[in-house]
Amino acid sequence: METVKVDLGVRSYQIKIGEDILANLGAYLQELDIGSKVLIITNPLVNSLYGSEVKEAIAKVGFDVSKALISDGEEYKSLETAQDLYDKAVGVGLDRTSTIVALGGGVVGDIAGFIAASFMRGINFVQVPTTVLAQVDSSVGGKVAVNHPQGKNLIGDFYQPKLVVADKKVLSTLEERELKAGLAEVIKYGVIWDQQFFAFLEKRIDEILNLETDAIIKLVTRSCEIKAAVVAEDEKEEGLRAILNYGHTIGHALEAVTNYKKYRHGEAVAIGMVAAAKLAYKRGLLDSAALERQKELISNFGLPVAYHNLEKEQIIKALSKDKKVKNGVIRFILANQIGKVIITSDLTEENIRETLEELGG
Amino acid sequence: METVKVDLGVRSYQIKIGEDILANLGAYLQELDIGSKVLIITNPLVNSLYGSEVKEAIAKVGFDVSKALISDGEEYKSLETAQDLYDKAVGVGLDRTSTIVALGGGVVGDIAGFIAASFMRGINFVQVPTTVLAQVDSSVGGKVAVNHPQGKNLIGDFYQPKLVVADKKVLSTLEERELKAGLAEVIKYGVIWDQQFFAFLEKRIDEILNLETDAIIKLVTRSCEIKAAVVAEDEKEEGLRAILNYGHTIGHALEAVTNYKKYRHGEAVAIGMVAAAKLAYKRGLLDSAALERQKELISNFGLPVAYHNLEKEQIIKALSKDKKVKNGVIRFILANQIGKVIITSDLTEENIRETLEELGG
Repeated sequence: METVKVDLGVRSYQIKIGEDILANLGAYLQELDIGSKVLIITNPLVNSLYGSEVKEAIAKVGFDVSKALISDGEEYKSLETAQDLYDKAVGVGLDRTSTIVALGGGVVGDIAGFIAASFMRGINFVQVPTTVLAQVDSSVGGKVAVNHPQGKNLIGDFYQPKLVVADKKVLSTLEERELKAGLAEVIKYGVIWDQQFFAFLEKRIDEILNLETDAIIKLVTRSCEIKAAVVAEDEKEEGLRAILNYGHTIGHALEAVTNYKKYRHGEAVAIGMVAAAKLAYKRGLLDSAALERQKELISNFGLPVAYHNLEKEQIIKALSKDKKVKNGVIRFILANQIGKVIITSDLTEENIRETLEELGG
Repeated sequence: METVKVDLGVRSYQIKIGEDILANLGAYLQELDIGSKVLIITNPLVNSLYGSEVKEAIAKVGFDVSKALISDGEEYKSLETAQDLYDKAVGVGLDRTSTIVALGGGVVGDIAGFIAASFMRGINFVQVPTTVLAQVDSSVGGKVAVNHPQGKNLIGDFYQPKLVVADKKVLSTLEERELKAGLAEVIKYGVIWDQQFFAFLEKRIDEILNLETDAIIKLVTRSCEIKAAVVAEDEKEEGLRAILNYGHTIGHALEAVTNYKKYRHGEAVAIGMVAAAKLAYKRGLLDSAALERQKELISNFGLPVAYHNLEKEQIIKALSKDKKVKNGVIRFILANQIGKVIITSDLTEENIRETLEELGG
């Protein structure tokens, strides 16, 4: 088993990564300073696959465990669902020492974390991510939220878990499309931070897509290390953390114009990363070889490198509404080599238009 | 003008206390590093009294100011009202650099703070408290929340304002009952922290009840200093901060059994403080003179020292449901002299029954 520490002073925590480690969850919880009540929040699909195993693992060491199911899908990551979960938390008698365990992907983790952050002004929170995306990204770093009808994650908090447990085993039941979408964020870590890791991904494409244990554990571990390093320096997204949005500026715009239906988040980010690489190339920051390597790795992981049937002007309009726009200026994260990025507003609207033109497949 | 600093590292902020200082609010906001958009959250009554003045003070220095009204009353401190406020925040286009100004008493401050804490994972927050209770207590220290049908403040956060502006002027329009209820928390500060302040209150009863400027500014300033000192040592209520709950254990039980209708919070706390003093006396911690001084000051401020027409057993049942109960044990804050308290679980049920018996007037 690998362990990554997220170093945040009194809010520090461990990410445990391994094969078939869900069974030890009870023992891991015993190591934390928490009370006897645990509420598992999950969705029906994940519950049918791993719900009993996780509940039993926690209950057998003496915790008083309840479960709450929420419907799967971004549209249920809402204040209405949050209200139901607060009712459940009250109903099962959670107190300030109790713990919420998020068992699922990003939707479950985000809303369960929001409940943990706000119930009684914050109770213990443990993440058991069951998708690649959640294991390498959303379960680490403390961003929790629900959606508002007018925008994703508009209502939320920074709230760190006490523990993250990423079991490679659960990835075997993922749909292939979901698996691949998660890999977009993994590629991102290579581009923004670690060219050796990028090279590792290039060399191990088949092992990764075949979910070979060693490759996956290395991939999840290194991704978490990079995210942990960034978050440790900038917990509340006041500076460095912005680099985690590499590929996300245009990615979010693509998600928005397609009402979050056409693309998985990772697919939109994949196209967004190609866009960012092209923009960097246009500005003379990045050479053509590095642009091609990004495109190729994205493509080899089965992710899209272009968009289809979308209006360029709609995408530009969506860009201007991005949460990250400050005083009307769009900031982009651009790589100047693989493994190194800068944050810049030094782009013309023409650069963006041209890039979108080239990407519209 | 007096200034009290709340010392919380990067989250430090100032409390400005003075007479007729609302007019300077725009200038104070300019000293903060905030964006151009401001949303004032207030209620219809406060709006009719001070809404225009505050809006103008902020707008005249160039901020883009909007206003949202919420109904007055604890029952509107709900997730439903929060939802309306999120809609408003989106509607007026608040971004991450925007500021929410809470103009009102505890209800307005608590819910406006909850919105500020959670909108876009936290935007700037400024408190302009308009009741004694809010000026000396609820606007300082970062507790923000909404109610759940099953419990007050069950959904919330610790979220510090960037600034608190307490204008003595606004207290002149308070109902007398509201004014007196706020003074209960002021007496509390004397008992838990500062016997000289307690003696000051004893000596200046008439000036305080007549709202004489010097006395009130001293009262608000010293109260804020004491609260700030406690909060600076224990921001998230993990230890020392519990002493702020002096009188609140039985106070909350009295509020709960009367559905938060019969007593103002401060009135329930007043009776709770008499109960705590009696308990301390029974346990041999406090002498009878100190017990009598507390009772007398509470009474001289026009606050109740006994309850009427309530079932003792109902109060005991409510006590056992208190948020602060840990593993079934009720902790009490008891004074061992005026100006000094301890936290103890060393009380028999008999002590509590007897005390409630004596208090049932």
